[in-house]
Amino acid sequence: MTEILINPDERVDYLVRENLKIIQSREVFSFGIDAVLLARFPKIPRCGTVIDLCAGNGAVGLMASADTEADILEIEIQPRLADMAERSVALNSLQSRVKVICDDLKNISAYAAPSTASLIFCNPPYFKVSAGKSLNEKDALTIARHEVATDFETICRTAQQILKPAGHFALVHRPERFLELVDSLRKHNLIPKRIQFVYPKVGAAANLLLIDAVKDGRPGGEKFLPPLIVRNADGDYSADINEIYYGAKEDSD
Amino acid sequence: MTEILINPDERVDYLVRENLKIIQSREVFSFGIDAVLLARFPKIPRCGTVIDLCAGNGAVGLMASADTEADILEIEIQPRLADMAERSVALNSLQSRVKVICDDLKNISAYAAPSTASLIFCNPPYFKVSAGKSLNEKDALTIARHEVATDFETICRTAQQILKPAGHFALVHRPERFLELVDSLRKHNLIPKRIQFVYPKVGAAANLLLIDAVKDGRPGGEKFLPPLIVRNADGDYSADINEIYYGAKEDSD
Repeated sequence: MTEILINPDERVDYLVRENLKIIQSREVFSFGIDAVLLARFPKIPRCGTVIDLCAGNGAVGLMASADTEADILEIEIQPRLADMAERSVALNSLQSRVKVICDDLKNISAYAAPSTASLIFCNPPYFKVSAGKSLNEKDALTIARHEVATDFETICRTAQQILKPAGHFALVHRPERFLELVDSLRKHNLIPKRIQFVYPKVGAAANLLLIDAVKDGRPGGEKFLPPLIVRNADGDYSADINEIYYGAKEDSD
Repeated sequence: MTEILINPDERVDYLVRENLKIIQSREVFSFGIDAVLLARFPKIPRCGTVIDLCAGNGAVGLMASADTEADILEIEIQPRLADMAERSVALNSLQSRVKVICDDLKNISAYAAPSTASLIFCNPPYFKVSAGKSLNEKDALTIARHEVATDFETICRTAQQILKPAGHFALVHRPERFLELVDSLRKHNLIPKRIQFVYPKVGAAANLLLIDAVKDGRPGGEKFLPPLIVRNADGDYSADINEIYYGAKEDSD
């Protein structure tokens, strides 16, 4: 087995439910709860091709790999993050079916044929770049969080191109952009079918949103799944979140 | 005080929180939890004009009357229901500021000037009339539940016409029509701002939806309020629902 280099700013975290390792870095990228919720949200096909369009350090693809024999393609525009993702794949000896590509997601057709993917994941940059707001557009966290290198419209166009008919596009995003998101999705004939709102605690407004859209699906009949509430009144993770993280349904207290 | 006639199929129910009486009929119309949730959803202006476009037996207008000194206009297309609503208004001696009109809501401009209403309520018929589905289009419950006498597009056009700038349009509807609803609202420049999903119990998908849209509001930044879960695991109303019904925040068990 070849040695995997871990850089000084990096650490190796453990994905309990999946029994996998992942390289993280506080300086450039660590995955958050949004990645975990996204990986658990759609039905994962048993085979075929699964693509993560905004892979970051590859957390979603790694988590999904535990649930399927499908080929997984992780695309990430930032070389530093793609490199972390690639080393995590090697660390788990998953090179035979998890590939990491460092490129702009709009070039996906160089790596996968049109209308072939069964499922596309996307944990995109959440925030618009507004005029007058100063951003360091070279900063890794800025690129991951703001629409500097891509935008939701481009992501939808790419997903429509690469998904097979009735393929699923699963994404996590922010509720305050919900109406804009469903407009862009439907413009590209990605029809939202299952929607789930995530609330940080009881009594708070939603701060995350999961959408499962179907390529060329029939409009109407969208389903709003039970709310996901992240923390109990005591601040601990709720039973739902513990189940998503660890696979066991019990309250943390 | 004049005597109020109560028909043989009717009963008089008591609205606890409002200390008001309401005439109901199992045969033609009794209000449901949707009316109660709708009446409590928007901020009620202290004065001005409040309109209920699909008043039924007038439950929403009556409940709102307890929270405001505004003039309330209840419009209801079915004579039998409008008559019940009118007698309920009399039963509570509210004739000076609650008016019941029996007409098609699209004729609202005969009763209120354009751009004058501060708040419009609507608990519309939820179900589309689909070709080949046999409905008794004269049946009171059919008219209340199906888009026989009006449709959501007409309701939005009417609301846009009669609301004052930045006036609020509060509605209750079904989640499986959510995307269609927000499209119709925005087509008439009624911008959804506060949205709340209602779930019958823990772990179930949403079966009702509340939307507060603002006339000519700025798009974006929509807020998804904490989920409303109607019943606890034991089948009793949740603390949230008890508070909405009775004004006291405590679990029913």
